[in-house]
This record gives sequence, structure tokens and C-alpha cells, in this order.
Amino acid sequence: MSACRALRGSNALLRAVSASSTSSAARITRPIAVSLESRRRFTASPRAMSSFYPSWEPEGPSVKTEIPGPRAKAAIAELDEVFDTRSLNMLTDYSKSVGNYIADPDGNVLLDVYAQIASIPLGYNNPALRKAATNVDMINGIINRPALGNFPPAEWAEILKTGILKVAPKGLNQVFTAMAGSDANETAYKAAFMWRRQRERGGPAVEFTEEEMNSAMNNQSPGASQLSILSFKSSFHGRLFGSLSTTRSKPIHKLDIPAFDWPQATFPQLKYPLESHAAENAAAERAALDEVEHLLTTYHLPPCAVVIEPIQSEGGDNHATPSFFRGLREITRKHGVLLIVDEVQTGVGATGRFWAHEHWDLPHPPDMVTFSKKAQTAGYYFGDPALRPNKPYRQFNTWMGDPARALLFRAIIQEIEKHDLVRHTAKVGEYLYGKMEGLAEKYPDEFVNLRGKGMGTFIAFDSPRRDAFLAKAKTLGVNIGGSGQSAVRLRPMLVFEEKHADVLVDVLERVVTSW
Amino acid sequence: MSACRALRGSNALLRAVSASSTSSAARITRPIAVSLESRRRFTASPRAMSSFYPSWEPEGPSVKTEIPGPRAKAAIAELDEVFDTRSLNMLTDYSKSVGNYIADPDGNVLLDVYAQIASIPLGYNNPALRKAATNVDMINGIINRPALGNFPPAEWAEILKTGILKVAPKGLNQVFTAMAGSDANETAYKAAFMWRRQRERGGPAVEFTEEEMNSAMNNQSPGASQLSILSFKSSFHGRLFGSLSTTRSKPIHKLDIPAFDWPQATFPQLKYPLESHAAENAAAERAALDEVEHLLTTYHLPPCAVVIEPIQSEGGDNHATPSFFRGLREITRKHGVLLIVDEVQTGVGATGRFWAHEHWDLPHPPDMVTFSKKAQTAGYYFGDPALRPNKPYRQFNTWMGDPARALLFRAIIQEIEKHDLVRHTAKVGEYLYGKMEGLAEKYPDEFVNLRGKGMGTFIAFDSPRRDAFLAKAKTLGVNIGGSGQSAVRLRPMLVFEEKHADVLVDVLERVVTSW
Repeated sequence: MSACRALRGSNALLRAVSASSTSSAARITRPIAVSLESRRRFTASPRAMSSFYPSWEPEGPSVKTEIPGPRAKAAIAELDEVFDTRSLNMLTDYSKSVGNYIADPDGNVLLDVYAQIASIPLGYNNPALRKAATNVDMINGIINRPALGNFPPAEWAEILKTGILKVAPKGLNQVFTAMAGSDANETAYKAAFMWRRQRERGGPAVEFTEEEMNSAMNNQSPGASQLSILSFKSSFHGRLFGSLSTTRSKPIHKLDIPAFDWPQATFPQLKYPLESHAAENAAAERAALDEVEHLLTTYHLPPCAVVIEPIQSEGGDNHATPSFFRGLREITRKHGVLLIVDEVQTGVGATGRFWAHEHWDLPHPPDMVTFSKKAQTAGYYFGDPALRPNKPYRQFNTWMGDPARALLFRAIIQEIEKHDLVRHTAKVGEYLYGKMEGLAEKYPDEFVNLRGKGMGTFIAFDSPRRDAFLAKAKTLGVNIGGSGQSAVRLRPMLVFEEKHADVLVDVLERVVTSW
Repeated sequence: MSACRALRGSNALLRAVSASSTSSAARITRPIAVSLESRRRFTASPRAMSSFYPSWEPEGPSVKTEIPGPRAKAAIAELDEVFDTRSLNMLTDYSKSVGNYIADPDGNVLLDVYAQIASIPLGYNNPALRKAATNVDMINGIINRPALGNFPPAEWAEILKTGILKVAPKGLNQVFTAMAGSDANETAYKAAFMWRRQRERGGPAVEFTEEEMNSAMNNQSPGASQLSILSFKSSFHGRLFGSLSTTRSKPIHKLDIPAFDWPQATFPQLKYPLESHAAENAAAERAALDEVEHLLTTYHLPPCAVVIEPIQSEGGDNHATPSFFRGLREITRKHGVLLIVDEVQTGVGATGRFWAHEHWDLPHPPDMVTFSKKAQTAGYYFGDPALRPNKPYRQFNTWMGDPARALLFRAIIQEIEKHDLVRHTAKVGEYLYGKMEGLAEKYPDEFVNLRGKGMGTFIAFDSPRRDAFLAKAKTLGVNIGGSGQSAVRLRPMLVFEEKHADVLVDVLERVVTSW
């Protein structure tokens, strides 16, 4: 808290920003208009970033009707005839959504810190991405979709090297491309199983036995391996059959679906504030690592890989320290088990580093890093050539991703670099976290276990009445998501600025003072 | 064969077409140029279709170098540094590929009857799709990718109704959208498991027990159901963990990957020509149905669904009769088991019907039909409202498909309707099948078990030296794929015309006369 107090006490400009925030909140129900005066005020501040795309966004939210309003209600009823709408959060008018603001058919415009479940990197209707979408390469990618394993485009190496691989995690220089987070993780798991069995078999040159080939066709061992993937309690890695077997976030995700009998370890449950629970938290992390090591060495289906999120992003925004992850890397290496870091939600800048695992200062890189969401494409990075299976067609499918989406990621990377958006997000995150500390201090029963310090804008807290909190925030002009049972998770885009943080924090405060 | 003879004997125009084919084959090594004379000759024939997009295509293949040639080889070596190229068939220059012709960086242009593993519906660089790709809706879909379950676009109902659902199989009026064939099948399986357990539980209103919720989190029953999906030997349904457990095509797909202990039934192995083996084939189909019924009633993990391809399209192009499929529908209904028809490869017109299962004249529709490939999007159709799980978020993921790809499918459907391409494909298929019968008659040891009569252009045969056959065809200017151990599978696009059939048949003949 002291850092926050110092910040607030010493910087007059911040007070101006805060005042501006209040006034912008007061304008919430007024029609959207860009206030040049307010823009100039922000620009004048050495802390405030200028907008990346001038004259791009509304200056604040605008809630005109209940949500859903009458138009949305009618459209939802029509949609529900053919498409399940029970998970619908907000019917969206994407043509009117701009930057950090999401619009609906009734003219409501909300600050969006949920961002399509953390999947929009650069704001709605980003002009640079629009340009990329009209480029001839993109159009060719849309209309001439290749089977990438069989018939890759001549320029595929260049697309990868200037795009997906340009931001490859340190030590990982190859990629297998996929469609979304679930199959990115599952193909990584498949690589892990093949890698482990190949090693057990005696190397890539050793042929499969007749028994292996025959039993594989019958889904039996030894052809179908009796190995496992170790994941963590409250983790989320996807919802297809293999990934769902490693997902442990909520029963509703898993009920009735057959699952592999794979092991789970406890994810350390840190207590907040961290400074007051250092010894206790270290002990929890040590215990979790001991449990992992125990499972790696004793589980009846030997784990060939451990999969972990840098922050458990669906299961409650659960963090662990770099020391924990370094310990995990050490244990997995010790036991010849692969470490798969699932950066589907944490990747692409939101934590203030391009990949969240960069925060850990690992002596050896993860064996595989999976990505999707903000990348708008998907896949897994790897470095060890032994992770290419020993024969072609073992890791293969028809499309193996989508070049159009790979091209979009390249354009996203270019914009991130052009505007230095990862560093920007680190700075805005610091600003936002300071403001959140202020709220937590003022309303300790409403903003509980504030977490994500130093992790960019990847910030969360627990709310004693979480679902009501989210619903109320929407009526006040901010779209926010939950995580786990009680967490409010903030997932701003990379173009989220201090001025947006001010709007957000103002609404968060008004939520808890409204009941 | 008799039908073929009659056709060839009676139609002078066909002989003209055949002569033209020979001359176009003779031009194979000449630079590509559109011959207006040959185009006019085709147009004059009442059987020959005019080109759908005039002046669009080269008039024939052009092989200038070995494949891969020097440019491709250099590019492949560069690509292989970062992306596994061992399954690479042909590095492709999509900017120079047009219609039914695929090009490579060395200037080779091949007639393409593989079509990105049966995934290109309307030819490369189709002008109508190019127009759709530059439409403002498409651009918005690319740059503002929604989480469709939470934040669907206001126009999503309209996109579905004018696109994916416009071609919904009879009796199935709803859709769950997905990314590709594997997750389309897997989400269909998930719907089946939830449907069955809900029924066993006593209906949608019955709540889950504590025991179910707790055991599900631990991947154990009763929360994780002990049910199964029944599939057929030599089937292919995808390569993620659940779909791979139902795939039974080749060991290389399955080795080392953990699998569910699910049952497989024998797919009837028909003998050709069908006319000479009617009783034997009927007995094989009866035996297969008996085996299915036995497994449905006795397997230790009760099947909640049977999944089947109308034609086993990866596992050898294995066909069964409409009577077999009607029997399968009857048995599944009798035992309260769902029937999932996997139309990922057979769907969207190639068999001369929009969906291959329309050939069966089913008294009751399948419970679910999965689609992808030529649709360029994916998902499963269903009709019974009970296939929506009883609670939201049970069938859910972040993206749930890609609206950009759904828009492309809508444009594909419009073109199919505009040019009546399904009926066209039925007719061209008939023409091609007749020509293939001629080859099989002339070279009975080279074109074995010709199959696919009446199934549009979805035609195959066995070759005693299949891999060499495919390699030789490529040197002669035609790109073809294999299926199973010995089948050559023809997968032309829907814009494949009689003139292309002539080029194809000419090359097929030259392949077998070349050794």
C-alpha cells in the first residue's frame, strides 16, 4: 500500500487524472463524443499515454437502456431458436464497438475489460488490423485455405518467421500451428506422449512392434500408451477430451464427459497481501512442489509432462511466485518430464511481458509453450528437435491452423512493436494496480485478495458477491468477467490507457457504494 | 460396365471430348494459355458445362520441372528449420493457382483432384469468394473476433440462417459451431454423453449430486461418465484425444496416444463390382449391423452414440449401401443410441447431394451431422432440443468457431446455388465414372474395385502400387491423394467439369501405361 500512497501523494497530475475520471463517469449517460479538451489534458501529463489511434474512441461509456435492451432482447430470442444463448453475456454490435469500448444494438457502449475472454489484443476495429485484413495476402489466405502439412504456401516460412516465430519464447525456435487453445494444448500433449515413448523405446530409429501397431488400433496398450499429463487443481486447459482431462476448474465443465485417469497436484494457494504471508506462502509452494514430485515418481500412469498456466486464469486468477515455477522446472528436468506452459490466456503482453513466463527468470526454458486467444491463432512452440515425432503424419491434421489468422497475428505483433505496447501495458498496469490498492484499502471487504502486482493489467480480486458485482458494473458502463468462484478478473486490451483505468476504477468504486 | 459401353458407343460428342482430352494432355509441357478454340468446342457440346468463371483457368496442366523443383526445394529447406515438412506433398504458390489448377513456385501447374484434402469447394482464387473476402462484414469478422457464446454479433442469427443453417440437413434445424472436423466431432460426442446421462438421471431438471460433482473434478465416475462412442474399423473422425479414440484408420495416427476403451464394429467390406456380389455384400452388411447391435447391448462401457462416415474417406474409400445405413438408423433408435453422421469429408456437394446421407432415404434423420472441410467452417447440426445440455456453459468454449469462416461458407453456398453445382457435380460424376469404367475394363489389374457410382465425383479405386501411382500422376500433371492402404481417392472440387475429367482420365491412363 505504501507505494500506492506515495504515488498518490506525490503526483499532482494523478489527482487531475482522477478528477477527470470522475467527470467522465458523470457523463456516462450522455451521448458519446470525443472531448478534445479532456484528450489534451491527458496528453499534457507525462504519465498519461497519448491515444494510439487519435479520434478513435468514445471518451467514456454510455448506458442508455437496461442490458439487454429491447432490440437486443428481440434479436436474442430470434437467435435462440437456432443457437443456444443461455451463456450469452451481451449481444454485440461490433460495427459500433471501437477500441476499448464494446457496443450493443440498443446503443449502449461499455468500457470492455473482458475483451472476448481476454482475446482482443488491440481494441475493436483497430485501423492497422483493418488494413491488414484488406491486404491481398489476407484475402488469399481466406479464399485459398491450405492443408498446411501437405501443401503449405511458398511464403509460409516467411509468414512464420516474421509473425508467430518473431515472438517465440527464448529457446523455442519451432512451432506446430493449431486452431485454438484446446487443440494447441492437445497437440502439445500428443508431442509429449510420442516423445516419451520414443525415448523409452530406445530412440527415433527403433520401429514400432506389431503388437504396438495392432493394440493401438484397438485403443489398448502397449500401442495406446499408459502415460498421463499432470495438471493442477483449479487449472483450465481447454474443453476437448484430452485438454478437459487436465482442466480442473469447475464441475460444469467436466460433468458427464469421460476423462482420462490423469493426476492433479495442488496449486499453491497464496494468501494476500503477500508481504504479510511470506513464510506461509513459501511453505505452500514447497508443499505443492513436493506433491508434484511425489506424483511424478509414483502415479500409476506415469506423467510424461506437466502442464501449467503462469496464472490460473479461469480457475480464480491464482498466482504463484517465480520461485515456484523455477522449482517446477527443476523437478521436471530432474525426472525427465516435459514442462508445458499454457500461455493461452496469459500470453501476448497482458502481464507486462510478451510471455508471462518471462517473469520467472528460468535457467532452462519450458519444453513447450502453447498460445492462442490474443494471438488470434494458436499452436505450441518448442525447441528440442526430439519433439518432432520420428515419422511424418504422426502429428498432423488437415488444416493445422489457419494462415489468415497467422497473418493477423503478424499484424498484431507489428502494432505491438510499433507502439511498444508490452512496456505500455506494464506501466498502465502499475498505475491501475496502484489505484486498485487504494480501493482495497478503502473497501477492504469488497476488494479482497487483490493480486497481479507487477503483472501488467492482469489484475484480479475476490468479491463477496461476485456475480452481482459483475452485473452492477455492466449497468454502470463496464464489461468485466469473473474467474473461479469469487474472482473479478480484469483483462484489458493492450491499448488500455491510464484514462481507461480511471473510468474503470471509478465504476468499480461506484459498484460497491451502490448497495 | 454395360452402362459405360452404351454411353461411349452412342454419343459422338463424347468421342470429340475424348479427342480434345488427348490434345490437351499433349500440351502438358507447353506454357499455359487459354485456348479459345477448345473452350468453344466444349461449349458446343450439350453435355459439356461451360466454365463457371470464364477465362479463369489454364486449359491444362503444365509440368516444367521435377516436383519439387529447385525453387521449391530451397524454400522447403528453409521452412523445415522451423516447421516439420516431412508430410509436405507440394509447396504451393496460391497466387498462381486458379480454379481446378494448383501451382508451385517452379511454375508447375497441376490439375488438382485432391483439393487440400477435399477442402476446396469452388477452386483456387474464386472471384466470388474474393469478393466476399473483401466485404466489410468479412473484414469486421477478421478483426473483431467474438467469443460467440458470450458476445455473439447482433447479426449472428442472420449469418447462420442465410449460411450454415440454410443448408441444414432435413430435420436438423440447430447448430453448434466449431473450428474444424475434430472439434466438431468431439463437441457432438460431448452433447451425446450429456444427453444420455441426463436421460439416465431422470431429465433436465434433476440436479447433479455432490458425488458427481466431486468425482468429475477428479476424472472419476460417476461424474466422469463410463460411457462410450461406437465407431467402425477403418473409420476416420479426427486426431484429438476423443476423436482419435473413434478413429481406426491407421496405426501411425494412433501410436503412443492414450485412448478411451471404446468399441469398434466392422464396417462392411463390399466386393466389386457390386452387381456380381449382391448376396455376399448384403450378408456382410447384415453381419456388421448384428455386430453393432451386439456391441450396443453388451459392451462394458455402454455406447451413447454411433459415429459413422457415409463413405470412409480416409480409411480406404469404403462404401456401404443405403440399406445398411437405414438398418443402422433403425438399430440405434431401437436401443436409444444417437446416430452421428460425420460428413466432414463427404458433405457440401461432392457426392452429388449436398449431404451424402441424403442418398440413404432415411425414415428418421440422423441425430447429429458434423461438417467441416469444404464448408471452410465446422460444427454439428442437431434437431432434438434435448441435445442442448440442461445448463449453460456445459457446451462452451471461447471462440466456438469463427464468424469469418462462417461468412465464407455463406458465400460458398450462394455460389453453389447460383451455378447449381451439386447437380452439376452429380452429372460430371456420372460422366467421370463412365470414363473410369472404361479404364477399369481396359486395365483391370491397375484400376481395381472401382467405386463411387452415383456418388458424384467421390470416386476411388485400388491400385496395386498406389504410392508410385500418385507420384507418377504428379509428374504427368495431376495432383491426387490416397486413402487407406491402396486406394486412389478422387476429390475434385465442385467446379470440376467434363473437360477436367478428360484431362484426369487421360493422365490416369498414361500413368499405368508408363511402367
